Amino acid sequence: MKDGERLDDLECGTLRIIQDKRGYTFTMDAVLLANFARVLPNEAVLDLGTGSGVIPILLSHKTKAKKLVGIEVQERLCDMATRSVLLNGLEERVQIIHGDMRKLPDYFDSGSFDVVIANPPYYPFEKGAEPPDEKTACRSEVHITLAELVTTAAKLLKYGGNFFLVMKSERTADVLCTMREAGVEPKRILPVQPTPEKRIDTVLVEGKRGGKPGLIFEKPLVVFDKDGNYTAEIGRIYKQ
Amino acid sequence: MKDGERLDDLECGTLRIIQDKRGYTFTMDAVLLANFARVLPNEAVLDLGTGSGVIPILLSHKTKAKKLVGIEVQERLCDMATRSVLLNGLEERVQIIHGDMRKLPDYFDSGSFDVVIANPPYYPFEKGAEPPDEKTACRSEVHITLAELVTTAAKLLKYGGNFFLVMKSERTADVLCTMREAGVEPKRILPVQPTPEKRIDTVLVEGKRGGKPGLIFEKPLVVFDKDGNYTAEIGRIYKQ
Repeated sequence: MKDGERLDDLECGTLRIIQDKRGYTFTMDAVLLANFARVLPNEAVLDLGTGSGVIPILLSHKTKAKKLVGIEVQERLCDMATRSVLLNGLEERVQIIHGDMRKLPDYFDSGSFDVVIANPPYYPFEKGAEPPDEKTACRSEVHITLAELVTTAAKLLKYGGNFFLVMKSERTADVLCTMREAGVEPKRILPVQPTPEKRIDTVLVEGKRGGKPGLIFEKPLVVFDKDGNYTAEIGRIYKQ
Repeated sequence: MKDGERLDDLECGTLRIIQDKRGYTFTMDAVLLANFARVLPNEAVLDLGTGSGVIPILLSHKTKAKKLVGIEVQERLCDMATRSVLLNGLEERVQIIHGDMRKLPDYFDSGSFDVVIANPPYYPFEKGAEPPDEKTACRSEVHITLAELVTTAAKLLKYGGNFFLVMKSERTADVLCTMREAGVEPKRILPVQPTPEKRIDTVLVEGKRGGKPGLIFEKPLVVFDKDGNYTAEIGRIYKQ
């Protein structure tokens, strides 16, 4: 553990994760996405922009994936993710790569993965006077745009393979149109409502490379009930 | 009234409508769409594929639109719609046109309408042995595809004007991508759930010609409660 880091319990088996609260820490969206993704035994899974490595680490427990690869462009996050993998004894199944995901097609054959997952930056990046810090680069499209990310996913997915993405609902049209353009047909949407009375603010989207049009639109997942407690559905997700 | 026709109370002011139950009769989706559409005083409104004329007739009461035009390709429906307009004394504000909506840009200047509305066929048409009947032509894309409809709407909408569409949720990607391609940016989605436990089966979508990306994703409208009664929200819509 380095200065400023802490060890968080993932409440999933005995998994723990190294994070630094001064920088970017994972959110509920990553947990919802890891639960939304369907991974079959022996599949190869790629997480684009893995950050702390939370998604491949959770999926090592939740699924029987053979190989879980996470790529992260920010060196400090990548270093923490690598040490979290070792800490949990997952080095045989989980591999963390430091680098720019746009260059992945140089290292992996196209169609190398059964499943691609991404919890990418939500907001377009507007250049300011200050260079972007770690949090900004996780939240805004500093290193990669949504269209570049989806194109990368499409190249690395096998034909018929599935893509799972989480995004702010205001960008639903961006997500669906970008996916369709890249040949990853949107097949399922799970909308997320913060409370029963609030608007949908997040969408989880599943696409299939080479899939036919036709979408399943799930009933919303509600996070908090009227009293401000987690709903039973969220409780189930966190207990898995 | 012709043989086989009946006069239905629209439960909206004193409005009534002529329908023939042997043919196509309007569904709740038309009522939800008329409620979803926002029309300002003195605006010009076009309903593409107006059928029985239910949407312009409802909007004559719900809004202060100056002009409400409905176009319908099926002659028998168009004839009933025209007589319903007369029956309600709406001939000065509501105009029903018989014809192919794809030819509308020949008759109206582009940008003639502030608002365009459509409750189009939901399903792609697969040619069978039998020629399609009236109901089939209302439900399947016999006369027009979704892409042709959206392109027509885009031509007739003024810059900044709004488009309101209802569609089966399985075609959400078709709707959003077709709209964006035609320059009508998706701005709002209202998902509809048949009951609190069922999946979303219908979407109401608002787009703006020349609008910027950015979508409001409303909480779902639920039609029936757990006991099979209309929810309070549906009750309010029907009472307006």
